[in-house]
Amino acid sequence: MENIHADILIIGAGPAGLVAANTAHENYPDKKIIIVKEYEKNQVPCGIPYVFGPTLGDVEKNAMPCGAPSPNLEVRVETVTQVDIEAKTAASSKTLYSFDKLIFATGSIPFVHPSFKDAVALENVFCMGKSYDEVKKIQEYVADKEHITVIGSGFIGVEVATELASVGKKVTIIGGRHVLAGSFDEDMAIQAEEIMKQKGVTLVLGQHAKEIRSENSLACSVVLSDTTQIDTQAIILATGYKPNTSLAADAGLKLARYGGIWVDEYMRTKHKDIFAVGDCSGRRDFITRDPSKVMLASTSAAEARVAGNSLYALKTLKGFNGTIAIFSTMIGDRAFASAGVTEARAQEEKIDCVSGFFEGFNRHPATIPDASKQSVKLIAMRNSAQIIGGQVIGGKEAGEIINIIGLAIEAELTLHHLISLQIATQPLLTAAPTNYPIVKAAQNALKNS
Amino acid sequence: MENIHADILIIGAGPAGLVAANTAHENYPDKKIIIVKEYEKNQVPCGIPYVFGPTLGDVEKNAMPCGAPSPNLEVRVETVTQVDIEAKTAASSKTLYSFDKLIFATGSIPFVHPSFKDAVALENVFCMGKSYDEVKKIQEYVADKEHITVIGSGFIGVEVATELASVGKKVTIIGGRHVLAGSFDEDMAIQAEEIMKQKGVTLVLGQHAKEIRSENSLACSVVLSDTTQIDTQAIILATGYKPNTSLAADAGLKLARYGGIWVDEYMRTKHKDIFAVGDCSGRRDFITRDPSKVMLASTSAAEARVAGNSLYALKTLKGFNGTIAIFSTMIGDRAFASAGVTEARAQEEKIDCVSGFFEGFNRHPATIPDASKQSVKLIAMRNSAQIIGGQVIGGKEAGEIINIIGLAIEAELTLHHLISLQIATQPLLTAAPTNYPIVKAAQNALKNS
Repeated sequence: MENIHADILIIGAGPAGLVAANTAHENYPDKKIIIVKEYEKNQVPCGIPYVFGPTLGDVEKNAMPCGAPSPNLEVRVETVTQVDIEAKTAASSKTLYSFDKLIFATGSIPFVHPSFKDAVALENVFCMGKSYDEVKKIQEYVADKEHITVIGSGFIGVEVATELASVGKKVTIIGGRHVLAGSFDEDMAIQAEEIMKQKGVTLVLGQHAKEIRSENSLACSVVLSDTTQIDTQAIILATGYKPNTSLAADAGLKLARYGGIWVDEYMRTKHKDIFAVGDCSGRRDFITRDPSKVMLASTSAAEARVAGNSLYALKTLKGFNGTIAIFSTMIGDRAFASAGVTEARAQEEKIDCVSGFFEGFNRHPATIPDASKQSVKLIAMRNSAQIIGGQVIGGKEAGEIINIIGLAIEAELTLHHLISLQIATQPLLTAAPTNYPIVKAAQNALKNS
Repeated sequence: MENIHADILIIGAGPAGLVAANTAHENYPDKKIIIVKEYEKNQVPCGIPYVFGPTLGDVEKNAMPCGAPSPNLEVRVETVTQVDIEAKTAASSKTLYSFDKLIFATGSIPFVHPSFKDAVALENVFCMGKSYDEVKKIQEYVADKEHITVIGSGFIGVEVATELASVGKKVTIIGGRHVLAGSFDEDMAIQAEEIMKQKGVTLVLGQHAKEIRSENSLACSVVLSDTTQIDTQAIILATGYKPNTSLAADAGLKLARYGGIWVDEYMRTKHKDIFAVGDCSGRRDFITRDPSKVMLASTSAAEARVAGNSLYALKTLKGFNGTIAIFSTMIGDRAFASAGVTEARAQEEKIDCVSGFFEGFNRHPATIPDASKQSVKLIAMRNSAQIIGGQVIGGKEAGEIINIIGLAIEAELTLHHLISLQIATQPLLTAAPTNYPIVKAAQNALKNS
């Protein structure tokens, strides 16, 4: 057993672990930082669906760079099996690390519904794991199969199903009442569904998968809640993830609801020298203040920056104030993006809210050759007019428009701020200054309130 | 002489006039609104350069829609020649309008340097006017010419020169030390210059055009400050604009420095029932608080929304707090965008500032087929870390990334806010969560401060 001391020890090298390491290294260049990761090769998590289609087409093309090596920032491939909080040590099978500061960045693992616990042992039933080997295995298996069923219609399920359909597979997706239901209201989600249908994906919505049937040790069909049976050659479960926290729990750290490691706004656990960032940390929702199940690499990166800045001293007040669940995806040639709460969710949470909508074009005049439709929906508190959510559908620029809305939510701005927003507009790049969609949706929301 | 009463009379139907009209109409649907405009056909102002190249190729394709007609929102084509503030009337040659509220949206006219006052009378020397007829005239004249000279290297000059070069013209542009010098620091501007050279534009920088020589009533060459002579068949002056305020000045309204109509933060002149919006209004710089010469349709639209909301009662505190000079353009296949002050300008203005820079890719991983380089520069106050400027070069998404930075400037956020910004990231749409350029540039700026 080798003994090694790290000033800052980080367990996990996903986006959270890497950003925590880089931020810590920038802040404390003299500290010895060690990242311990389980697998040699890392995948870009959000790139995984694109391995199955024409976009990347190969696991190798989805490699996540680990950043420039540095004498004070070392990456080691080992599995940490035990952490002793009092002794400030962490052990793998061959190394005993001592540390001053420890950051858990152990990520998440696929959530498997109890009804499928046995099915996942079958050779042709896959969880959407995030390691190189897991992804490679799915890719190789489905290569010569025709009928594939995806269970789960969150963004991973939607992306995987659409990519597989793009290379000619007959794909069925089984989901909730609408795809992407956590992030989009019905009026927006149906646009995604239309595109998926055009791409040849069969949508089975408003039902759940009750049972996976097998024959000769291979899954052969999925039985729906209405007893319909869908024959299939492979099944991909895209039914969410849960925090990977057994190591932390064994060490005695407190867990939050939904199983994440309890942290404060600076990403500190109850022990001020031990931090948790990314999917393994217990999250709150920025708006509802409730525990949140949202898992996004960008949220993880934000948390990791807060932790990396706060290791030896707090530098800015408040730290990480909860996830705003901001994300984007591409379905066909349309980008779909969402931040904050949907209108449906706001109503469930008994938020007295108002919404505004605008549809225009992403170029001006609309005769510009690559112009396409662009729509924005905004959700705000009815009384204070504070922005609490937004949804965008458009060209690729929608992926950044949502970040304007996200910043408005984070900065606690109101519809009144947005109606006189100063924005750059340009014929080849954006909507017209007279019809900029965020401004027009804000005006519409004020009119509706 | 016909007598007509308008509750709200708007003079001018550019972006400022139209947005003021639409905002007023939304706020006060019962009020009778009349827009009086000079020309039947309006051009999208920022679309004009694209009429000269392959993008639009035709003045007709650059028409600006006037919005849906409504019984209470009327557009009339006449030239208002006199306004009587005390009597609350405005007169054209055939109509005497009485009004409760008046909005000047008379825009701007090309600024012509005294050395060129005579030259502009020549048939082949053109100002970059904004009416259909003016643009059509230039387009028709240059159609069969080979050598064209553009004087002025602001964004209009750069866009026109690049578009003309794209259809095979031999174009020379004469400008300051660098193109787009008001909006980009040297390190960013040289990237624009490189692309313009690749497109075949001849750049003559660091000199000014001293004289336009003519032969047989046609301009034949431009003489530079170092006496070099550039032979040419047509000259386009893209040397800026000045507020079109003779009507307002004749009516006795106070003008601000640079000639715009003096207005307060709610776009009211000294007379509370008379407003001015857009290029004809006297602007202040959001950061330096000095009078500003910046003229942008998006700024005009923001001002017009403030005015349209404030006609009969102020509804939100403060109104329009000065222009942040936010704009974007496309040169070749790269988007260039800027907001706030450049580092060079900040230093001139004796702002103790710090800058940060990051260059990465606009997709992740960088193996995504349409990935291209993306760079962000941020400028902030050294002590308070408040964001005062940003520059972005990238794919088309840069046109919206600048709007995130613009919002950060308007909301008076600091580098500390930006380093833990929650952003949506997606392989096909944005940079990686680990390398999001605004966040990384903010980190870099903090490191440099």
